[in-house]
Amino acid sequence: MPRFFIAGGSFRGNSVLITGNDAEHARVLRLKVGDRIVICDGDRTDHHCTIKRITPDEVEADVFESVPCPAEPSVRCLILAGLPKQGERSDYIVQKCTESGAAEIVFFLSHRCVARPNADGLAKKVQRWQRIAEEAAKQSGRGVIPAVSAVSGFAEALDIAIKTDLPLFMYETGDRTELKEAIESAGPIRSAAILTGPEGGFEPFEAELAAKIGFRICSMGPRILRCETAPVAALSALMYATGNM
Amino acid sequence: MPRFFIAGGSFRGNSVLITGNDAEHARVLRLKVGDRIVICDGDRTDHHCTIKRITPDEVEADVFESVPCPAEPSVRCLILAGLPKQGERSDYIVQKCTESGAAEIVFFLSHRCVARPNADGLAKKVQRWQRIAEEAAKQSGRGVIPAVSAVSGFAEALDIAIKTDLPLFMYETGDRTELKEAIESAGPIRSAAILTGPEGGFEPFEAELAAKIGFRICSMGPRILRCETAPVAALSALMYATGNM
Repeated sequence: MPRFFIAGGSFRGNSVLITGNDAEHARVLRLKVGDRIVICDGDRTDHHCTIKRITPDEVEADVFESVPCPAEPSVRCLILAGLPKQGERSDYIVQKCTESGAAEIVFFLSHRCVARPNADGLAKKVQRWQRIAEEAAKQSGRGVIPAVSAVSGFAEALDIAIKTDLPLFMYETGDRTELKEAIESAGPIRSAAILTGPEGGFEPFEAELAAKIGFRICSMGPRILRCETAPVAALSALMYATGNM
Repeated sequence: MPRFFIAGGSFRGNSVLITGNDAEHARVLRLKVGDRIVICDGDRTDHHCTIKRITPDEVEADVFESVPCPAEPSVRCLILAGLPKQGERSDYIVQKCTESGAAEIVFFLSHRCVARPNADGLAKKVQRWQRIAEEAAKQSGRGVIPAVSAVSGFAEALDIAIKTDLPLFMYETGDRTELKEAIESAGPIRSAAILTGPEGGFEPFEAELAAKIGFRICSMGPRILRCETAPVAALSALMYATGNM
């Protein structure tokens, strides 16, 4: 069923008004009076609606049922990824992690990042990623559009991740716990963070720093995953292990 | 460490000869006498070598150790995917499933496939996919290059998958088992197949047919995954569950 995200402000009693790009999208879908759509408030509630009126600029719909969005996982999982060199890789991380249930996606710069965009460049990228996340959230039936952001430093990324119940640091060498063992020994969790590196991975000092402040340093097995594959594979594993797949 | 795949025929006693594209690749990597490389026989054995001689056309290396490739999973997992409309989606399936440990990748045409290439077109695509699989196998450290093929019909795909210990059919609606329950109730397995649909998913008659011949009809959870995301997510889950991640 066609799915729209809309801020709380556009609700008027039992009726919802869709304008702007969303109204344009409704026209592209050739929706007509009487068709059913889902309008999500972006805060985990789905409003099932029937279209009452369509003009070239707006769509008015009546809500007949409001239910919690069934697609939101029980674990709030943050993805923190070292900024890849190639733009298509970061786009890919945003799209696939949104489909797979990420609550939030944060890109950061670590020692081996090659791409070093300035503040303006980064702001434009964040806008682009946020559009990709919105599109993927609609397509996959999410009840929340994951917030996508960028922080300039590795330390900021650690600081965000460490506040979750299970901060996981994906590392390719050295002394590591298997991801499965890290997840299963954690017991019930309400939140988690998956931190992955850019193309060249992490420096040893970065892994040591993360271990010291309480991250689990994890192995994802004997195959070396590309920087854009690792977050999605780890997120799929976490969703699977916590009964969210 | 640089990794090459080479057929058994190029071994001469304790020495290996690299020619053609692989020799070209060695030049691109600026390898020199004394450098260490891994030459995989493509049949799960890694030969650790030292380069003895380099000319513009060939590289000769001495084997100092031959070991089973540690990256090969204990479960032989086949991926069978309905041919996506867009070429980049099938490329993506090949690359990511190779990294994630697929033993073999088979594309098939089912009722809702939009792309219907003729035999010539399909043969060219298979060549392209096989190159992508080789590249991804090198990069991720695999001991086998997954064979990529295309079968014309849905029935052929079912027939291949049903011969594994755990044939899994990913379906978006109706009566389904959770993927987790299907995998965990199967007990120890040596092989599995993950069958996923094209953009529009499967027809109900296709799911019924699969169920009748012994597939587990599986749900991958409440979020709708894109056709190129589903095989990789399911494979990650299977690798995780069977201790191969």
